[in-house]
This record gives sequence, structure tokens and C-alpha cells, in this order.
Amino acid sequence: MARVTIRQVARHAGVSPALVSGVLNEVPDLRVAPGTAARIRAAAAELGYTPNFMARGLRRRRSETIALVGDTIMTTPFAVRMVEAAQQAVTARGYLLFLVNTGDDPQAERAAIRALYGRHVDGLLYACMYHREVPVPEEITPPAVFLDARPDSARFPSVVPDDHGGARNAVAELAAHGHRRIAFLNDEAGPVAAGLRLRGYREALAEAGIAFDPGLVGHARATPETGEEATARLLDRPGVTALFCFNDRMAIGAYRAIRRRGLRVPEDVSVVGYDDQEFIAAYLDPPLTTVALPYSRMGAWGARTLVDLIEGKVPEQREHTPVLMPCDLVRRSSVGPPPA
Amino acid sequence: MARVTIRQVARHAGVSPALVSGVLNEVPDLRVAPGTAARIRAAAAELGYTPNFMARGLRRRRSETIALVGDTIMTTPFAVRMVEAAQQAVTARGYLLFLVNTGDDPQAERAAIRALYGRHVDGLLYACMYHREVPVPEEITPPAVFLDARPDSARFPSVVPDDHGGARNAVAELAAHGHRRIAFLNDEAGPVAAGLRLRGYREALAEAGIAFDPGLVGHARATPETGEEATARLLDRPGVTALFCFNDRMAIGAYRAIRRRGLRVPEDVSVVGYDDQEFIAAYLDPPLTTVALPYSRMGAWGARTLVDLIEGKVPEQREHTPVLMPCDLVRRSSVGPPPA
Repeated sequence: MARVTIRQVARHAGVSPALVSGVLNEVPDLRVAPGTAARIRAAAAELGYTPNFMARGLRRRRSETIALVGDTIMTTPFAVRMVEAAQQAVTARGYLLFLVNTGDDPQAERAAIRALYGRHVDGLLYACMYHREVPVPEEITPPAVFLDARPDSARFPSVVPDDHGGARNAVAELAAHGHRRIAFLNDEAGPVAAGLRLRGYREALAEAGIAFDPGLVGHARATPETGEEATARLLDRPGVTALFCFNDRMAIGAYRAIRRRGLRVPEDVSVVGYDDQEFIAAYLDPPLTTVALPYSRMGAWGARTLVDLIEGKVPEQREHTPVLMPCDLVRRSSVGPPPA
Repeated sequence: MARVTIRQVARHAGVSPALVSGVLNEVPDLRVAPGTAARIRAAAAELGYTPNFMARGLRRRRSETIALVGDTIMTTPFAVRMVEAAQQAVTARGYLLFLVNTGDDPQAERAAIRALYGRHVDGLLYACMYHREVPVPEEITPPAVFLDARPDSARFPSVVPDDHGGARNAVAELAAHGHRRIAFLNDEAGPVAAGLRLRGYREALAEAGIAFDPGLVGHARATPETGEEATARLLDRPGVTALFCFNDRMAIGAYRAIRRRGLRVPEDVSVVGYDDQEFIAAYLDPPLTTVALPYSRMGAWGARTLVDLIEGKVPEQREHTPVLMPCDLVRRSSVGPPPA
């Protein structure tokens, strides 16, 4: 593809190259008749002129590029929607996205961040694969926005899922169907979300007038196998008719434990998961009622917030607190009334 | 972060700024004592000097950036490993990766490609979410490499999974266990892989001395629900003891159909899937023997091939044929001998 030059566009539009350059590079305060500007843009479009962004970036002191640095996000298939949404949002604003996955190696991460600033990215998105607290690498300077992460510095905006509200929604759904003995299978690794979801579980119980029974809270690693074992233990507790699982992968194990005992979902035991993980929640038999993690909305929000900061459309703030993105309940077929 | 300058590095190393610039920018044929070059690099590292890649790119006529343009790859969680592997491979060679997901919209794709060339990417990776034939967008010029795609022009290197060999492996595994009536549940949408896998199925049968019975080939959409219905029909055929599914999602449905009939996997019916899809194959009960799609290897191969072309390490070829990446069998617990 031979590059179309400013000169060719100028000849086509019958104006000077300097005027073409001024119009196409959106030079501020340029004096030009609206009709002429339109003619120049039409000529550029007709000839397929592509601006030289790199040279323009040097003039404007802006590269119109954004970096997304992720810990292990690309190895987490269900979190890539956040990357996808961020990419779409920055593209819509005329930016291109650099993607670097650091594999959670701090040295690789710092080298990548330095290389990105060396290429003059206008801002940085820092994304985690799950809701966690992160020390801000000292290389990162504003503007930067943290996704699915709580940075240890209030200098940066961030967005995380409302795990507390999501768990409350899940347990309220079970209580609304008449369940009173609702077990909670939590993640024994104790991530940030585990504490928040336990709080949501207890609040929903209190709101429904159900006393908290610590014996109904189980712990396991977030896999089907350990979820199956832990569910079997919870089903030994008297009167349990419903189970809220920390995530959909544990719910796979819960289904197995329920089936191995000769019981059915939801006729004998109702189950609610968390994540709305693709290829799991909707594919379970019966399809799983669960709480969706708002990956797309977090990605889009973060990207828009970052571009607004870069372009000075929002004032810089000294102090930020994490924005909580709602986690909606997705109703499928795993919740029913308790057995009579 | 205040930027460290060439001047500061020069002062620290006790040499001229021109020499620092020459060493750090790897100017060819530069005369400098090895000890001096090492001292300059040490000084740069100590002070945290970051090269200005954009200015360097203008001088070198290389931006050290690569673009990965995908159709809907980021909405396909199991294909993101290809993106991950490509990113790691280009990073290892000192390049940064732009990621654009075009959502399979040709207009968005062309606009993105123009914008990427406008930023002087050194080369382009074009990735599809599944093995398919693609018309090459006219904006794309060499060097470019196609991943999981067969471009309609022989000017570009490409890599695709060896679907033919993978299917042969799957069916040979069933024949080796003693199965003679092996059904094949194919994708009715007829993607490139459907034809190749049917060929592999027939070849493996022929190699095992089993006559091909068209009545044992079923068709369905690639979902659990349709897989379940189609499997039920195949199980009505006399003597069927094994099933090869076009993908793991259909195998979910096959498991259900087998269970609904009061039969067990693998005691009554052996099942092999395709894809080795995360969170499905290993999580099925029993875990599914399947054929792995080589996403990581395709991504890494494509990235290395592209960088080699950019750096002139391999000669430009006029004509390319797609490289076939092997699809390995992953043995789990869904295959056994046929019932006595």
C-alpha cells in the first residue's frame, strides 16, 4: 500500500499542504472556512489518506495509545471480557491499546511498564484477574486506572465488583423462595471477595430474619473436586435445603455431591453460584442461577475514565475510593422452593 | 517519574552524550570499547534511563511494535491463549503488542488496520477465533502472519491446527481400545474443521479395518442441547459403543444423553471430544479424553515468524502454504473397552 501524502491531498482539494496538515491534525485555533475544511476531509477520505500518527504524536505530545497491563488476566478466560470491553472503549475514542500480560512476575511487569512509557503511552490501565489489593508499581504515574483491583494508593481511580451486594442478592433470592437453612460454601484461600461475600450472606440472612449458624459455612478451594467434598459435609447438617457457592466451579462439585446422594437440583436442594462463568453456568444441568461478575462494565468504565483524564475532561482528584460495580443475579433453573 | 536524560547517563558514565546515544540505540558499526559500552549500559540501568522509543523509531524506521488484529478472538475465551502466547513471544524479542478486536466487522477492521499502519507497526498478526478461510483485507501488506486462518493469498505465512491428524488420533484411540462401532457427531455448520475431521475419522477407521457406515455420522450445532439430541439418535443405532464429538461442548450433551438412557461413560459408551476446552473437558464427570487445539503453539509460532520476517532473519518467500500445527490427544477417563 503506497502511502498517500499530504501533498496529494492538497492537490486534490486545491489548497496548500500546510492547510491540509492543519485541518487533518486538528490544529487549535486554525482559521479556515468550514466548507474548505470539509473539502479537505473529503479529499483525504477519497484518496485513503492515513495520518502519520507517530509524527503527529511528537508534535501534539500525545501518542493516542493506551497500555493495558495485566497480571495473569489473559490466562483467565472468563476475565478477558474486561480486556475486550476496554479495547472497544478506547478504540471508540480514537486510541489504540497496547496489551501486556506480565504473568504476575513483578520484574517483567516493571520492565514492561518502563517500555510502555518509553513509547509515550498516554495512560495506563492496570487489570487484575480477580478482585484483589495491589501495591502500585512505582513506575506508574497518573493518569492510570485500576481494574478489578484496589491499589494501595488513593492517587488512582479504580473499579471492583460489588461482591458484598452480589452475595446479598444471591442469598436474598434463596430466602425469597422460602429457604431458611441456607449453607454458604466459601473460598478457603480467603481472597478479598471471600470476606465481602460472607458479609453479604450474613446481611441477607439478617434481613430475612434468619439467625446466622456458623456451622452452615463451609470452606474449600475453588475447584469442582474440593467443592464436591465440602458440599457433602454441608449436606450432613440437618435441614439444609439451599447452598450458595463462592463460584460456579465449586457449584459443579456441589451438583455432583447432590446427585451422588440421590438428590436433585432444585427439587431437593437449590444452588446459586457466582461468576456467571461462560461454558459453565449456562451449561450445567439444570442451568445454574448465579451472580454475574461485571467484567465488561468494569473494562468499559475504566477505559472511559482513563481517556477522560488524558483529555482533561474530568478534573484530577487527589483522593479516590474504589468504584463498586453492581453484580447482577442471573436467574436460571437451579433455585426452587424447599421440599415440602 | 521525571525522565532520566541521555545527558545524565553520559555524565554518570563519564562519556559524551553522543556515545551514550549510539550505544543505547545500538547504532550499527559504532566504534566503542566493550568496557565502555558496558559502563554506559550499567549507568543507564542504575539511573533508570528509559529510551525514547518513539523518537528512536523515527530514526530507525522501526517502531518495535506489532499489531494483533482479531475477528472475535477476545470473545472466545478458549482462544485467548493464542493472544497470550503471541504477546509473550513478541515481548521476548523486545516488541510491544497492539491488540485490536474488530468484532468481525469488516469496516471496523479496515479502519483499525489503517490506524495501526498510521502508527507504523512493523508487522501484523491476523488471528481468527476458529480455523477458517479469510479474504485478506487489501490494507494488509507484508510482513504479516495469519493465525488459525487460511488467507486467500499465498503471499502470507499462516498456521492452522492439524484437524485432520487430530481426528485421526481421536478415532485411532477408540479403535485401539477395541471399539468397532464408532459414531461421529460432526458440526452441521460445516466449518473447515468439519471436513478435515471427517477425513481423519474415515482414515482411522480404514487403518483399523473398520468399514465406514454413513449412518454413524450425526450432525448438530456445536452446543450441549443439540449435542444431546443428536447423540440420542446415534445411540439408537445398533451396537454403538463409542462416540467422537466435534467439540467438547457437544460432548457435554453426549454425556447427558448417555446418562438419561441409564448408561455410563466409559463402561457402556466411550466418548472423545475436541478442543480440550478449559473448564469443560477436565471438569466433566468423568473427565473427558479429548484432542487439544494448539492455541499457544500457534500464537508463539506466528509471533516468532513475524519478528523473523521484520528483522530479515528469514528470506521473504513468494508463496506460502499453511503450516499444520499438531493436535495432541489428551487422555483422561472417558475411554475404556467396549462392554462385553
